[in-house]
Amino acid sequence: MAGDGFASLPKPPYYAVIFASRRHGDDDSGYAEAAAEMTALAQRQPGFLGMESARDAAGFGITVSYWACEQAILDWRQHAEHRLIRERGRQDWYDHYELRVAKVERAYGWNRE
Amino acid sequence: MAGDGFASLPKPPYYAVIFASRRHGDDDSGYAEAAAEMTALAQRQPGFLGMESARDAAGFGITVSYWACEQAILDWRQHAEHRLIRERGRQDWYDHYELRVAKVERAYGWNRE
Repeated sequence: MAGDGFASLPKPPYYAVIFASRRHGDDDSGYAEAAAEMTALAQRQPGFLGMESARDAAGFGITVSYWACEQAILDWRQHAEHRLIRERGRQDWYDHYELRVAKVERAYGWNRE
Repeated sequence: MAGDGFASLPKPPYYAVIFASRRHGDDDSGYAEAAAEMTALAQRQPGFLGMESARDAAGFGITVSYWACEQAILDWRQHAEHRLIRERGRQDWYDHYELRVAKVERAYGWNRE
């Protein structure tokens, strides 16, 4: 994730994992550390392209990670430490999440600068 | 958008428009109204399936809208009022945005309930 929140991505096609989640907010312990660790682990995975994330004050958030190919997503899903953190997410942090795997076919942007 | 933030979607395949944006925050006038109007307009478009959105306190946000097919996205892009609100977005509210059109191939969720 770049400092301004936007991922720097190549031209499509590539893949996106859209992760929408609601945190219940009762247990903050370890969440920020785990999220940072997840990001660091993902960045070291082959095929990882970037990540964008936003969460509102009410606990609803969307994280989109971008990947070069489907195999990279499957490999990340099987990653041992990732599995452990996912399990902790269900146990301690999330009430509900939805995950969608999508192939990005076209993209464009706009910047005031 | 459902009350809990999650879109209720059919089984894939369907399409997602991932809109990541940074607001500069100088001009709040009309933003909430325009966002609500955009959502209401989109909901009346043929092929609209749902929407999820989150923005953090620093002004970085992600909105994902879901559509039955590519034609529905192209029609929405050409919608006259949508074009006007987009123009206003570039003029008044956003510093930067990135838009990605993707085909959702698989999806799954988890709920504590």
